[in-house]
Amino acid sequence: MSKLPNIGTSIFTVMSKMAAEHGAINLSQGFPNFPVDEQLTNIVARLAKENVHQYLPMAGYPPLLSNIALLVKNSYRRIILPEIEILVTAGATQAIFTTIQALIQTDDEVIILDPSYDCYEAPVLLCNATAVRVSLNDDYTPNWTTIRKACSANTKMIIINNPHNPTGKILTQSDFEALESLLQQFPDIIVLSDEVYEYITFEEKHISAHTRINLLNRCVMVSSFGKSFHVTGWKVGYLVAPEHLMKEIKKVHQFLVFSVNSICQVAISEYLDMVSVDGIGSLYQTKRDYFRELLKTSRFKLLPCEGTYFQVASYAAISNENDVDFCKRLITEYGVAAIPISSFYENGKDLHLIRFCFAKDNATLEEAAKRLCKI
Amino acid sequence: MSKLPNIGTSIFTVMSKMAAEHGAINLSQGFPNFPVDEQLTNIVARLAKENVHQYLPMAGYPPLLSNIALLVKNSYRRIILPEIEILVTAGATQAIFTTIQALIQTDDEVIILDPSYDCYEAPVLLCNATAVRVSLNDDYTPNWTTIRKACSANTKMIIINNPHNPTGKILTQSDFEALESLLQQFPDIIVLSDEVYEYITFEEKHISAHTRINLLNRCVMVSSFGKSFHVTGWKVGYLVAPEHLMKEIKKVHQFLVFSVNSICQVAISEYLDMVSVDGIGSLYQTKRDYFRELLKTSRFKLLPCEGTYFQVASYAAISNENDVDFCKRLITEYGVAAIPISSFYENGKDLHLIRFCFAKDNATLEEAAKRLCKI
Ligand SMILES: CSCCC(=O)C(=O)O
Ligand SMILES: CSCCC(=O)C(=O)O
Repeated sequence: MSKLPNIGTSIFTVMSKMAAEHGAINLSQGFPNFPVDEQLTNIVARLAKENVHQYLPMAGYPPLLSNIALLVKNSYRRIILPEIEILVTAGATQAIFTTIQALIQTDDEVIILDPSYDCYEAPVLLCNATAVRVSLNDDYTPNWTTIRKACSANTKMIIINNPHNPTGKILTQSDFEALESLLQQFPDIIVLSDEVYEYITFEEKHISAHTRINLLNRCVMVSSFGKSFHVTGWKVGYLVAPEHLMKEIKKVHQFLVFSVNSICQVAISEYLDMVSVDGIGSLYQTKRDYFRELLKTSRFKLLPCEGTYFQVASYAAISNENDVDFCKRLITEYGVAAIPISSFYENGKDLHLIRFCFAKDNATLEEAAKRLCKI
Repeated sequence: MSKLPNIGTSIFTVMSKMAAEHGAINLSQGFPNFPVDEQLTNIVARLAKENVHQYLPMAGYPPLLSNIALLVKNSYRRIILPEIEILVTAGATQAIFTTIQALIQTDDEVIILDPSYDCYEAPVLLCNATAVRVSLNDDYTPNWTTIRKACSANTKMIIINNPHNPTGKILTQSDFEALESLLQQFPDIIVLSDEVYEYITFEEKHISAHTRINLLNRCVMVSSFGKSFHVTGWKVGYLVAPEHLMKEIKKVHQFLVFSVNSICQVAISEYLDMVSVDGIGSLYQTKRDYFRELLKTSRFKLLPCEGTYFQVASYAAISNENDVDFCKRLITEYGVAAIPISSFYENGKDLHLIRFCFAKDNATLEEAAKRLCKI
């Protein structure tokens, strides 16, 4: 008997594989295709010859912990204690899995918004807990009234994803006020905030959950250098948590992975000495704008995109197929891979929407758009 | 309420930290202190400048999967299917955690031998399962009669560690025969075989569990390049499992970590094209023999060491302290860090034994031995 009977292969794996098989331009799985900053790759090349090949401490390379604390301070003016409140993880996925394993018990309930990225549910199920899905509003803002209604004495966690994958929505000041008043009513609920796109926001500035005074003690924030520094393969992420939660998270972490890749931890730490994250938002804003411009003459209708490197598009004017079939045909007939939005919904709700990743060099975006404009 | 109320910081973290604080020679945590093979670091330096920085496939970099299959074939003459039977993991620890999460359910029982390495129990507890400890014989061979007695209809897994950390024992042909006859009697039991020191055996050749015809379908074998190629910080391991178990393991893996560090996967794959694992056993055999020779004039009594890079020693002739206190005094008064063997026992059984890691350059072993001979 499987512990995860309804879980198959992640849509990102399926689509990337199909893209490769058909030689399609891969705008499905979220990763950049442009070269990594030379300053960063120079560090790796040098480190290869240094003494960075053995276990680093379980919680992370101490200078990296300090640099993450500094990054948080510079980004959000919040002071955190590197050794106590930060844990380096093998990517955001491991941070999320570990947090859920550490904090969620049998029969607990965890609120997951719908649509959502696909890695939240399985870890909840593995804890014999219940994933309670709550639909976002039609414009993908959270509906705090329905979220509150979904909360019970068994609710132990609300998972938010801000900026939101796949819709690019970001949470506002008033969202946080609503969340905080909800938490006042339910003192046992913790917020798990997946913020891997924290530095990829455009017109509005990102609000990081752990910087809200009322969430300080109630929130685990997860981020990743994979997205911020265009190195998704490195699998170096981190989480920020108050001491009483961190204590439990570290217990699981030390027996789940023990420590994280040493070369890449040291490299990111040194890189953080040299650069800032200031340009990341505008880099991707330029790409978003360019990609949207390129698609202007297509029959796709583009939804708003406030953050992340994903653009959601409706193909309702093009076809009546379901979004999975449409995505497959997009690969085989037009040579472009995208992600069907139905895969982010618990029940596979199909709104004839697909997601494009625009973290690509201009030539790739141009060629993809050329193909998409032919449809 | 903690899910792991009785779990503290791993002894390896505690001792490595204390060693660093006191500037002691660190023979506690198991990692080499000599330079990594230049051929391997050259590959990393070159790869830094190549396109190896984005997500690799979930199950592992395909050429690495093929090379692991080849390694298995060359080492054990067993043919395995790279895409189906091998999964690359973020070290052996993640492989073990993931396997247990995937296969163990509430109220299942898992047999863990005593003494054991410390990462088996927590993942079992997190599944709401029971860890059933069975003592090894006094000479650290498994007692198959008591193991059989400990098995019940609820037993789902037996965890073996071969070569065995900390005792250096390796399993024999007749151990496997006893295990196989036990499995015949209990058709639901799976063997999780932690073989991270598979290439570090001395007088006797290692028998890998998954190469036993009667275990083919019943065994998950775990190994790690950290130990075999002296790069414990890289966190690249793998597991070998039959398809029906792998299917469940991959479901968890994809939501636990998704994929493993790209640079190091590609580097190890290329390195496997160039080198063999043949010299690893004799490298460490020479170190073992040298370290034992150096300690001949000490008052420590050395136990046999058939594999791993650990030497267990009795200090009964030196002191009556418990082994944790003795290890602390060894650091503060004599400048050498070791691991107390009591930390490998469920109940902290103290036999006045400590473990030294001899994966060190000769100068380090000489200086450590000089200090140890003064006691
Ligand atoms: C871990 S694969 C998916 C990458 C990603 O974040 C996405 O495509 O949404
Ligand atoms: C993961 S830290 C412990 C390393 C090791 O294998 C040991 O010292 O036994």
